[in-house]
Order: sequence, then C-alpha cells, then structure tokens
Amino acid sequence: MYSVKEVMESMNLVVIGASRNPLKLGSLLLKGLEDTGFQGRIAGVNPRGGEVYGVRLYCSLEEIPFPVDLAVMLVPPKVVPAALAECARKGVKGVVISSEGFAETGEQGRQYQEEVRAILRSTGIRSFGPNTLGIVNTETGLATSYFANDDMLRPGTIGVAAQSGIFVGALLRYISSYNVLRMSKVLGLGNKVDVDESDALSYLMDDEQTRTVAMYLEDIRDGKRFVEVAKEAVKRKPVLLLKGGRTSAGARATASHTASLAVNDKILEGALHQAGVLRMRSIEELIATLIGFQCTPLPLGNRIALVTYSGAQAIMSIDAATEGGLRLADFGEETRNRLEGVIATPSKRENPVDIFPDMIAHGFEKTSSEILGALLEDEGVHGVFFISFATPEVEPYRPLVEVIRERPTKPVFFSLMGIREEVEMCRAFLEERGIPFCLFPETAVQVFCHMWRYAQTVNGSLTERWGQDDAE
Amino acid sequence: MYSVKEVMESMNLVVIGASRNPLKLGSLLLKGLEDTGFQGRIAGVNPRGGEVYGVRLYCSLEEIPFPVDLAVMLVPPKVVPAALAECARKGVKGVVISSEGFAETGEQGRQYQEEVRAILRSTGIRSFGPNTLGIVNTETGLATSYFANDDMLRPGTIGVAAQSGIFVGALLRYISSYNVLRMSKVLGLGNKVDVDESDALSYLMDDEQTRTVAMYLEDIRDGKRFVEVAKEAVKRKPVLLLKGGRTSAGARATASHTASLAVNDKILEGALHQAGVLRMRSIEELIATLIGFQCTPLPLGNRIALVTYSGAQAIMSIDAATEGGLRLADFGEETRNRLEGVIATPSKRENPVDIFPDMIAHGFEKTSSEILGALLEDEGVHGVFFISFATPEVEPYRPLVEVIRERPTKPVFFSLMGIREEVEMCRAFLEERGIPFCLFPETAVQVFCHMWRYAQTVNGSLTERWGQDDAE
Repeated sequence: MYSVKEVMESMNLVVIGASRNPLKLGSLLLKGLEDTGFQGRIAGVNPRGGEVYGVRLYCSLEEIPFPVDLAVMLVPPKVVPAALAECARKGVKGVVISSEGFAETGEQGRQYQEEVRAILRSTGIRSFGPNTLGIVNTETGLATSYFANDDMLRPGTIGVAAQSGIFVGALLRYISSYNVLRMSKVLGLGNKVDVDESDALSYLMDDEQTRTVAMYLEDIRDGKRFVEVAKEAVKRKPVLLLKGGRTSAGARATASHTASLAVNDKILEGALHQAGVLRMRSIEELIATLIGFQCTPLPLGNRIALVTYSGAQAIMSIDAATEGGLRLADFGEETRNRLEGVIATPSKRENPVDIFPDMIAHGFEKTSSEILGALLEDEGVHGVFFISFATPEVEPYRPLVEVIRERPTKPVFFSLMGIREEVEMCRAFLEERGIPFCLFPETAVQVFCHMWRYAQTVNGSLTERWGQDDAE
Repeated sequence: MYSVKEVMESMNLVVIGASRNPLKLGSLLLKGLEDTGFQGRIAGVNPRGGEVYGVRLYCSLEEIPFPVDLAVMLVPPKVVPAALAECARKGVKGVVISSEGFAETGEQGRQYQEEVRAILRSTGIRSFGPNTLGIVNTETGLATSYFANDDMLRPGTIGVAAQSGIFVGALLRYISSYNVLRMSKVLGLGNKVDVDESDALSYLMDDEQTRTVAMYLEDIRDGKRFVEVAKEAVKRKPVLLLKGGRTSAGARATASHTASLAVNDKILEGALHQAGVLRMRSIEELIATLIGFQCTPLPLGNRIALVTYSGAQAIMSIDAATEGGLRLADFGEETRNRLEGVIATPSKRENPVDIFPDMIAHGFEKTSSEILGALLEDEGVHGVFFISFATPEVEPYRPLVEVIRERPTKPVFFSLMGIREEVEMCRAFLEERGIPFCLFPETAVQVFCHMWRYAQTVNGSLTERWGQDDAE
C-alpha cells in the first residue's frame, strides 16, 4: 500500500476524463493546472486524443510514455472501477476521484463505491474522494482542482483536511486571500472511500511544512483511532476542528453530501476535547484562530490586559474572557507608575485601561504607545487586547506596530470600531504587518482562549478549566 | 416633569462648557454641530465669552436671548449642580450630562450624582447621563456628540438606546456605514441618573419614526417595569437587546464604566425572553438582525429552503437552523417539476438544493434564477438561503435580484464564499439593492430565527420552542 505522503508528492499527473469542451470540469481543471504552474508532468486521457491548454491527451493510460504517480478521475462512476484497474497496471500510486454519483446518491452509487474500495485494497492504490476537489501541495505547486488559484498555491504552513466537495475550494479561496494565511498541504476527503480523517491528520502531523492543522469533518469513521492520532498530533502542532452535522437534521443532510453516517457523538467530542483538539464553532472562528496561531506567540498564561476607549466593548470582552477561563491581569507597580504618567483618572488606570479622554489631551499615538509598551513589559500580563476606533488615516497605528515589533513575546490583538471604510483600511494596514485584527474583541478573546488552551496542552499543564464558570 | 419626547424634540440648544481650544470636547462638539447641520438655534456658555465655529458663547445661561430647551454639559462634576440650578431658572427641559467623573469613579462622584438627582427631581428637568455622548434625533438633525457624522444623521427607522459612553458613538458610526441601516432616534443613557432603559424603551415604542429598537444595556434598574414596557413594545416593533456584564468579572467592570449594579439575573433574562425581547449575543448578530428586519418581510413560518453549491455550508446552516427551531421545507409538486428541469441528479433536487455542477452546464444565471423563483413561489417555503460563491463580476447576481424584487413576500438571505475582494464586491452589490448578505450562512439562519420568533410573538402564536432540541 502506498503512503499518503507518496501520493501528496506526486510529480507525474494524469487527468482521466480530460476534455476539450471548455464548460466541462475536465477542461477547467487543465486550465487551472496551466494557470497555477505545476512543475511536474501532466497528461490527459480522452478516447479521442488531442491536446488542450498545452496538455497532450492520450487515448488510454498505457499510451502515456512516462510513469504516472497520480490520476485525477473526472469520469462517470460506472467507468471508475475499470479506470482504477488500468491505473494499477500503470503503477499509479494514488487517485483523486473527483466524480460525484457514488454513495452520496443512493444504492447504485454505493455499489460503485464498494467496487472501488475492493480494487484499492487489492492494488494498494490510495484514493481521495470520491466527490472531492482533491489535493493541493504548495511545495510542488500541485493542485487537482480548478478552484485553485495563485494565492492558494503560495507556500505556507497551514495544513487543511476537509471532508467536502467544493466547499474546501471556496473556503481556501477565502482563507488564502488573507495575507497572513498560507497553506502547506490540502487534502479533500469527499466520501472517504480510502484516505480518511485519521490518515489525513497522521500525514499532516508528520509533514514538516505544516505547523497548524485545520480540519472540516462531517463524520469520524474510526473514533478511537482518530483520538489516538489527535493526541500525538497536538503534541507537535495545534489541531483546529470544525464539524458539520451536529444536529440530527444536519447529520441527515451529510448522508446525501458525503455519504456520512454522522452521529451526534458527544462522547467522541469529549475525548477529542480532552486530547487537546480545538473545536471551532464557525468558519469565522476558524479563520480568526488560524490568524492568531500564525501571527502571535503562544501565551504563557491566562492573565490578559485590555486597552479600550469604550467600557462597553471591554465589558463584552471580559464576559467572553471569563467564560473562556481567562482572568484580568493585576498590574505591577512599574506599570501603575507608567500609566499614571498618561492617564489622569485613577479608575481608568485599572484593567481595562481606558484611554479616553486622555488620548485627546496627550495625543493618541503617545498615550497608546506608552500604555501598550508598559503592558507588554509587565510580567503579569500574558496578552493584550487593544480595543479602539478606526481612524481616517492609518498613521496613528504606526507607532503601535513598532511597540509590538520591539516586544514580540506576547499576543496582541486589535479590534477597531467606527466607519466601515476606515475600519477596513486600518484592518488591512495591521494585517499586512502580521498583527491580528478582529472586528469584535470578543472574537479575539476566543482566539486567545484557544491559544491558551493549546499552550497548556503542549506544556502538559492542561486541567479542565475550559468552560468553567467564572468563580475565581 | 418634562417628557423624554419633549427633550428629544429640542430645537434650542446650549453647550455649557463650550471651548475655543480645538482639543477640548467643548470645541469638538460645536464643530460637530456645524458639520451635521442642526437646524435649531445653538449657543455656548463660557465665562470668557467669544465665538467658535459660528456659535456665540455667552458668559452665563441667563444672558442667552432665546429660550433654551436642551443643555449639553461638558463641565467638571462639581460644577454640574450649580449649572443645573441655572438651567432650571432658564426653563431648560432637559440636559445631557456628557461629563465623566460621577458615580463610576467613586465616592465623591457618587455624591455629585446624588446632588444632580435631587435637583432633577425638584425641578422636573430630564437628564441623559452623566457619562454619555447624549442623543441623536435624525428628524431634526440634532446630535449632542462630536462622534456624529452625516451618515448617522440620515433619517431612518432604527431607534437605539445604549447604556454607554463612547461606545454608542463608534457603534453608530459602524452601523450607519451600512447603506440599509439608518437611525431614527438615539438615546445615550450613561450612568442613568434619570432617563433609564424603561424610559428610553417607552419613548422609542411610542415614537412613530422608529420601527425597530436596538438596545445595549449593562444593568436593568427596575426589572419589573422594564419587562412590562418590553411586553407593550414588542407588540408594536421588534426589540433587540445586547447585554454586557453577564459574567461576574464583566459585571464588576460595569461598576467603573457606567456605575452599574449589574447582576447575573437569569430570572429577568427569562422574563424578557418570554416577553418577546430578542437577545443578541454579539454586535455582529445585532447588526445582521437589524439588516434582516430592515430589508426583508417577516417570515410566515419556519420552513426554510437552502440553495447551495456546497453541502458543507448547507450542513452547518442546517445545524444552526435546527438548533433555532427551524425546519427544512418539503417541496411541492410544481417545485419538484421545475427543479427537475434544471438539476439532473435527483438527490440534488432535494432540500438543500445543490446547484453544482448543473449550473456549469446550463449557466449560473439561468439555473439559479429558475431555482430561486420556484422556491419563492412554493407555499411550503417560508424563507430561502442562497449559499454560493463570489464571482469576479456582480453580473451573475443581477437576475437573482430581479427574481427577489418580483416576489417580495419572503426573506431571502445571501452568503457567498470565495476570494475576499470578490466577496466584498458581491456583498456591496447586494446590500445596495437592499438584499441581506451574511458572510456565513449560519449567521443568516440565526437572523431568520430571531425574525420567526418575532413573527410568532406578534401574531400571538409563540410557544416555547425556541432552543428546543431537534426532535421533529
């Protein structure tokens, strides 16, 4: 049996069901491969031969004059078993079965899928799918989906595995339009006839390019094995899990999506949580948390400081922090002295620190830089949330970026409220400089909670205080 | 005692503590009033007299040659009682005490606040604050805060009351940069020395310009009265409540913010929920829900349909819908026939309807328009969620806007995933046309849940199925 790694490193690719009709997936994919500049060899299989987007189409797999590592199948389900047998004869290591129409569509499709499974077992070929956009390897430029684009192929350190068809393509387009979010490897799992969530996590855990793992799953085939792999994986890198099908109606819908037998398995969820897997409740939370892990160091403790212009936003953040097991830091004496120098009202020097209205008198840049510097240098502070307002120019935020760059050991998150255009401009400015921005500070606090939980998992100090009530 | 309404309709305004120093709030406010073009009369009080931004400054209130309705106070707390007495002699109906330094800062401030309260009681003057940006009336162009801008003053139908200082200013800037979100009246409550959440809601309930009420509160002074007012209010318009201080740490922080005595009062929360008040869990949810109420009709039932390119996003939406008490619609025969005409695979014609890959063969516009039209004409469908991908141009979405305009009786929400720039462009296109857009469909589903709950409250059919498990 070939390994997932061998398949992911394929440099000789063939598209079975390549097409010259520009409206067919078999054509769109070849166009995509041309655009993304895969450096390996590519061929297509089409009974009528020919050429499309510079790729030669052969009448059959055996006619191809070079060895083939990976085959992408875009042919109808009933043809897939025969094509697989041909792949075996050609020495193909892995296939991406992009075709739909397998177990997710009913009995006939289920039979095709079982046939495929039997051939895979007997030949040792590994398979992604059916019903998946397939895989991405940013080290080699390989992408088996027409959804891939240049941004998605810029190498990074986020490994993604998703039990989904097209969703992963659209999601990756979105994620990779964040400057700071770059992938390492992507594994589309589809119906999981072979490569499943445990195989995928196991591969990403060992993959040196990958430093953070993000997964979307609709079911977990072998709970015991997945928990075991997850336990190992979280020792090496954070594992973020977004799961669909948590209600019975949602679970029923997964049946016609990726033919999942999703169960509302609270025990499994509990075990994964205990193992240190970070459960994401939404795509939004997933993206924000990825940004946190990519851009900031792990927190050394759970004592946070808030700088704010607005008690209300601070209070909503404190609620979220408390619910997530964080505490407000007590400031050290030096910090107190430094705050006294810029903030006139004693109660505003407490945590949350209120920069209003002193920043009007002393200037925003001076006041906020001095405060942020003092907090980042306070040993009792493990992370800072800077909650302020968007400004018509980004200049006021430039000195703060410097303050953070000079003290890069603690997470700092920005949340700015105000006119949308100004918010977007300030967001872009900060993101370009690798500083995490969340529109609402509660989201930033949630991200910190995940990072703090992960920090405890890694250093073995995790006790079950997650979700604990807010008693001190 | 004057009424809140009388104060909100003030046309003769004086700023006590007006300043010629451009860095002082007393100057910024007058500049703001000039920019926002309030049509009433404005004067300032400053012991040294003079003029700033075209506003004449008088040495004392009694020198002002016209009657004054409303005074905005930017003077230190210890001066406020004397200024109030002067206001009483001048016949002032209401004051906005913007000054900080009252009960939120400790014992001395608490004493000042009690003095203020006593004077208000004996004179009948109504007061907003202390510690608030004050009020906005978009009918008259009145705004007592330098945070106000043109967008915020464009008249609309959303009434806002917020127990906060500056937050409400930044929040309103953000909200009013959404084309579809326009305010009617805004009441900043600050420390609530006089006008409190019940007064504010009572006023907004009666205000004809206001069609939806949004509140941010840190404590509720008189729970019984507030529940009674809320019960009346929800009969006339939806009431959305975002509450800070739900944890004990958050509640402690409210003490130094608006001097609230917040308690984690689950009984009160339950009563408000029963009364039909819609509890928002985040600013994001508040904004999305406001957009829902502004842009779409109330749903007539809880059976929803999903159109999607992605099983995964549909499944996460179905999870959210199920948790919120919604059901997937069963399609009528005519709908089934129409879907059969555009979707080849039978399982993809079920709910959620999967437009992929048929939309490649038949064209996105044609496929999606036909499907959306069929669903909106199906009596068993009470709302549609269109979950798709962002496109490089907005053109593909133009026919869908027409389909919705021609069938305007049901809520339709869009969620598009893809490259961020394209997402933003499609979002802007849809929002400009009054069609609600939520990046993630789970958010749209939550909004629908709130609207469905409100619909049931209004027609008296509300039974406690909210939050119920997903048993059918």
